[in-house]
Amino acid sequence: MKRLLLGIALVLTPALAPAQSHPSVFLTKHDVALIRATGSKYPLFARSLASAKAHLDTALAHPIDVPPPGEAGGYEHERHMQNYRDMQLAGELYQITGDARYARFVRDMLEKYAVLYPTLGPSPYAKDQAPGKLFHQALNEANWLVGTAIAYDCVYDFLTFAERARYEKNIFRPMADWLSVTQAKEFDRIHNHGTWATAAVGMIGYVMHDTSYVNRALYGTKRDKTGGFLRQLDLLFSPDGYYMEGPYYVRYALLPFYQFAQAIENNQPSLRIYDYRGGILKKGLYAAMETTFPNGVFAPINDASRTMNVTSPEVVLALDLAYAHYGADPNLLGEAAIQDQVILTGAGLAVARDMAAHATPPKPAWHSVEFVDGPDGKDGGLGILRSGSGKDATMLLMKYGVHGQGHGHFDKLHFIFFDGGNAVVPDYGFARWINIEPKYGGRYLPENDSYAKQTIAHNTVTVDESSQSNGVYKVDEQKHAERHFFDASNASVQVMSANAPGFYDGVGMQRTMFLIRDARLRYPAVVDIYTLTSAAQHDYDYPIHFRGQLIATNVKYDAHTADQRALGTKAGYQHIWNEASGTADSSVQMTWLDGNRYYTITTAASAGAKVIFGRTGAGDPNFNLISEPMMIVRQHAGDQVFASVIEPHGFFSEPEERSAAATGDINSVRVLGTSADGEVIDVTGARGIHWTVMVNTGAASATARHVVSAGGKRYEWTGNYAVSGVQLK
Amino acid sequence: MKRLLLGIALVLTPALAPAQSHPSVFLTKHDVALIRATGSKYPLFARSLASAKAHLDTALAHPIDVPPPGEAGGYEHERHMQNYRDMQLAGELYQITGDARYARFVRDMLEKYAVLYPTLGPSPYAKDQAPGKLFHQALNEANWLVGTAIAYDCVYDFLTFAERARYEKNIFRPMADWLSVTQAKEFDRIHNHGTWATAAVGMIGYVMHDTSYVNRALYGTKRDKTGGFLRQLDLLFSPDGYYMEGPYYVRYALLPFYQFAQAIENNQPSLRIYDYRGGILKKGLYAAMETTFPNGVFAPINDASRTMNVTSPEVVLALDLAYAHYGADPNLLGEAAIQDQVILTGAGLAVARDMAAHATPPKPAWHSVEFVDGPDGKDGGLGILRSGSGKDATMLLMKYGVHGQGHGHFDKLHFIFFDGGNAVVPDYGFARWINIEPKYGGRYLPENDSYAKQTIAHNTVTVDESSQSNGVYKVDEQKHAERHFFDASNASVQVMSANAPGFYDGVGMQRTMFLIRDARLRYPAVVDIYTLTSAAQHDYDYPIHFRGQLIATNVKYDAHTADQRALGTKAGYQHIWNEASGTADSSVQMTWLDGNRYYTITTAASAGAKVIFGRTGAGDPNFNLISEPMMIVRQHAGDQVFASVIEPHGFFSEPEERSAAATGDINSVRVLGTSADGEVIDVTGARGIHWTVMVNTGAASATARHVVSAGGKRYEWTGNYAVSGVQLK
Repeated sequence: MKRLLLGIALVLTPALAPAQSHPSVFLTKHDVALIRATGSKYPLFARSLASAKAHLDTALAHPIDVPPPGEAGGYEHERHMQNYRDMQLAGELYQITGDARYARFVRDMLEKYAVLYPTLGPSPYAKDQAPGKLFHQALNEANWLVGTAIAYDCVYDFLTFAERARYEKNIFRPMADWLSVTQAKEFDRIHNHGTWATAAVGMIGYVMHDTSYVNRALYGTKRDKTGGFLRQLDLLFSPDGYYMEGPYYVRYALLPFYQFAQAIENNQPSLRIYDYRGGILKKGLYAAMETTFPNGVFAPINDASRTMNVTSPEVVLALDLAYAHYGADPNLLGEAAIQDQVILTGAGLAVARDMAAHATPPKPAWHSVEFVDGPDGKDGGLGILRSGSGKDATMLLMKYGVHGQGHGHFDKLHFIFFDGGNAVVPDYGFARWINIEPKYGGRYLPENDSYAKQTIAHNTVTVDESSQSNGVYKVDEQKHAERHFFDASNASVQVMSANAPGFYDGVGMQRTMFLIRDARLRYPAVVDIYTLTSAAQHDYDYPIHFRGQLIATNVKYDAHTADQRALGTKAGYQHIWNEASGTADSSVQMTWLDGNRYYTITTAASAGAKVIFGRTGAGDPNFNLISEPMMIVRQHAGDQVFASVIEPHGFFSEPEERSAAATGDINSVRVLGTSADGEVIDVTGARGIHWTVMVNTGAASATARHVVSAGGKRYEWTGNYAVSGVQLK
Repeated sequence: MKRLLLGIALVLTPALAPAQSHPSVFLTKHDVALIRATGSKYPLFARSLASAKAHLDTALAHPIDVPPPGEAGGYEHERHMQNYRDMQLAGELYQITGDARYARFVRDMLEKYAVLYPTLGPSPYAKDQAPGKLFHQALNEANWLVGTAIAYDCVYDFLTFAERARYEKNIFRPMADWLSVTQAKEFDRIHNHGTWATAAVGMIGYVMHDTSYVNRALYGTKRDKTGGFLRQLDLLFSPDGYYMEGPYYVRYALLPFYQFAQAIENNQPSLRIYDYRGGILKKGLYAAMETTFPNGVFAPINDASRTMNVTSPEVVLALDLAYAHYGADPNLLGEAAIQDQVILTGAGLAVARDMAAHATPPKPAWHSVEFVDGPDGKDGGLGILRSGSGKDATMLLMKYGVHGQGHGHFDKLHFIFFDGGNAVVPDYGFARWINIEPKYGGRYLPENDSYAKQTIAHNTVTVDESSQSNGVYKVDEQKHAERHFFDASNASVQVMSANAPGFYDGVGMQRTMFLIRDARLRYPAVVDIYTLTSAAQHDYDYPIHFRGQLIATNVKYDAHTADQRALGTKAGYQHIWNEASGTADSSVQMTWLDGNRYYTITTAASAGAKVIFGRTGAGDPNFNLISEPMMIVRQHAGDQVFASVIEPHGFFSEPEERSAAATGDINSVRVLGTSADGEVIDVTGARGIHWTVMVNTGAASATARHVVSAGGKRYEWTGNYAVSGVQLK
């Protein structure tokens, strides 16, 4: 990304507001009064409270264990993580219920940490990370301190002066110093690790009434805003609120962003942190929600889990606080219904109160949206087209922004298609068995670099079996794709288009994707036009990754039934088994089954097209990869257009033993013609379907006139695209 | 199976009871009165009724379509199937609501069939089946007639004499004749097809007051009980009620058994059909329920879907009728809660009434049980050990009965292990994409014979890469395995044991499986002792099929990362990729992840043991197989004992990013010693676990004394087994 210097004047450090009473970093006295008065009236709040109590009942029934530090993902690691969560919850419950058992639990645990912590040096279990002392990495130490600061705040008045002094001397100050002085570089880093560290140090600073920690947290170790929380807010989000590392990591960063923001709001309201940078916190939360699949899972862009979803506690916290601060929004309430839990503060109470006012909770219905990428919004973007509402909605996502720092992938112009409750054309996500110790300590696997990050692991064209920018991070990080056009104004024909120049030497790449609703098709279909231009000849591999079972194909292929080989030797190809291969001269068609629905892709093929049916799992001596199928259409060409339609159809239920419409309705996709700045694609299908899709391949313009002659016919249109023949629903 | 002649005297045909009023084959006037009076009071009934009405609202809003016959699984086929279901429901709703729209719907549809049916000859779409006329096979015609008989019965009094005469002449009599005269062989067949045919013909006989159809249905085409419904009841179930073809097919057969039984009960109560053969219908239903996994899915034994479950309409019907006739049983009520629907008769009303009396529905808690197999109960059996209740219960199933007719597999001594909500050591089930037309017409695939039925597709030892009985059906059908002993009286140490002699020339096979609950292990563990005896040397392949991801193994192996070959050329081995192979001399250990839990198998290995990590998918040119992993431990030996422990442990949640105890607690499994009639196995693990497992390998006896000397120690026990060292929970 461009390290663009933003024109925000350096603010003078404001004085802390008069010492707040406790609690004030998360819960407030006002919250507590309101919760005691009304909490039991709202089922969602009452359930969340009951569940917290039940959890703490178990914790209180067991001996407190504060073991010596251990390795990542091991028992000791997990114990310390659980300990801070338990302390935080106990602190909150102490405030809400007044039951001293909870406060004693926090105190007794802090006593043990006050003995252990002074004995610790840097963790011997650190590998490439900035080390913590309790944990192998400083990041977990920051997690611990954020939660424990809240716990400490909640029981502050319960503790004696001597106890407080002991904990601050033995735990909190050394830990805050470790994070912000010893690990200053990590602290000032513009990265979620930095966000966690600043939140931890700032929050414990508020609780201890120590402005030096707070100011370091807000403005960086140099107090000049070259690091610190505000700088994170400036640089980690695009102007739209899109988080540079993608939705999986924003989920993780939302907690320290919102948790510290709320602490700032409570203690230094004059900073107006929720309005900072035009309400970037609001935009950040909304952008995160808008990149979720209709089932609540975060689209796994870049290094990401395929299952992380809105029910994670970080998102519950951010959503409740956003709802309370930025105003009641039915879409947020709909997501809160999926979460089915709230935080135990006034914000959670507000969500539960509004939920109780609805007989049935609103269904989230996010609209199509384009995010710009990069801190100045000029580094490409991310397009999302949607149709329908609720869990059965359709979503088409195309990625054309920045690399995304260390967790980025070589995946420009990659798309994901979600339909019928599943990511049916999926992203592989990360190659990682997170926190599973025997799997490489639960860390990123070697196959994350060798496969998951590579271009062929994505639904975008690979050139000459090499990844974009030859798979070199430092090179790719300097580049970004470019927005071309985006138009979701017509619900029947939505479109997004982008370019990715310079990712392969001498090769131009443009992709235009439509989401088309035609009355003759039961579900919206995707039209995908991928255009490559090059003076030299290349092998272009157009892949489609899928899950479930291959049902049928029109490709005549040789199946490699008795022995099979890896498809290549590098750039991810060494991880793909070549299960079968064949050739095709006209349309390539394949139908697969995923969940309760069939999907058919129909791709226009030119003479000499090769088709490969592959499966991940080669070159994987440790069984680290997930076994999944893909189809690759390979063309050797200079200029090349891959035009495809992906069509959901039919129904299958194995327990009901019912199948309907296992064969799709689209019969053919053809590239009718191209000109210097335009392309015309012809799609035909059952029930008289005949679409003509015209696309501007030159500079975006709403007014330019385009003409393409093909087969003795002239196709003319104005603007970036035109689609004829779609029957309105 | 043995075609044993049962000593049941031929009963004389009793006269039909005085002509019943209508309706009387399914619903009765008494039912209708009760439903009208109380149906709305019981939420489960009210919901089922509302759902039926909503379904019919849609059907009534569309034009009736009675198309010409079509191919299996095609639109026409599905339309006719849906038509009879709609007619049946409409008939029932007419009775319950009195709304004439429903009766008119049935009449209007019958009018169309009365035009179509006389024009039809044998279906041209039949392949190897006995053909129907509306459908490719007579079986579907019988399905149709069962439902339509109920519909006709319900609207009988609504119709004019002329209408009834027309339908009987044009549809019902020709169809009943087709099923029972033209297709007499299929009708008399002791098989679920025969059950359906007799139910259809008998039920329409009752509605038409034609005793000739009824008697043919009850006693077979020769009226001598060599065929017919009663003969089906005699021969298709073991004395315990275990259905010869297994749970997947009993699910399908339960409907005609119970539906016809209820029609008989209503019309010829003197037959006391529900008490027939000691209440075999009750035993059949209970046996079916007792072979379900804790998640309600029928254990997929023989040719079977892996997803068929108790919510299927056939099981709802049978369960409701059994509940009403055989008495209120909390276990049935628990299953009814999973079903969340009831039939619209007095029986469904009874279930709904009792459900309404429970604040929370009872959880099914089936106990361990052994079924004997074969009509006389002497052809081996099926053992099921269970621990816990609800969906998280543990279930271990071993199959040691008959082949199971045409849908049987070569799978004697095969086991399935269900734990943590999943079949973690699964059965492959059938190789079939049921009703998916492009997949071989939705029929059984060639890979069903070449893989799914073969021994290596199961969790039992394969000898010399050949299936049991060399994979010859007619040979295997003559054999059966033998019960050895079964004891579930001690909840901490449950055990089942069986022999399978003669399935491989000169090789004796015995398997003893324990389900052990030890206070030091969080979940019950399996101890598996598989003993092979042979004068000659063989290759013994002990396989464990699993799903999910391989996490870790102690085996030093060569991974075939750049090319891989099929493991063999026949008996299913041609369908297994050899992903990696290695050798081991002591314990073989492998951990995998399935769902939210880890599983570790530890197997005692002898010198020269070879270990193969395989995956289904080789030899599969049409992508018909599901890709799943397995591990095979191969020993070349004459006498051989495979002793293993399978241990569930830990926890993993990817969305929560939590993992605990990814490494198991069992460290070693050793065969300490063997004698002529005994074996001693030693199991050690964490927290002082040290089990000594002693097993009688000779003739079963509760009193015989056994001695095995090993390592200078004498192990003595009385009876079939002894296990020491288990710490009680």
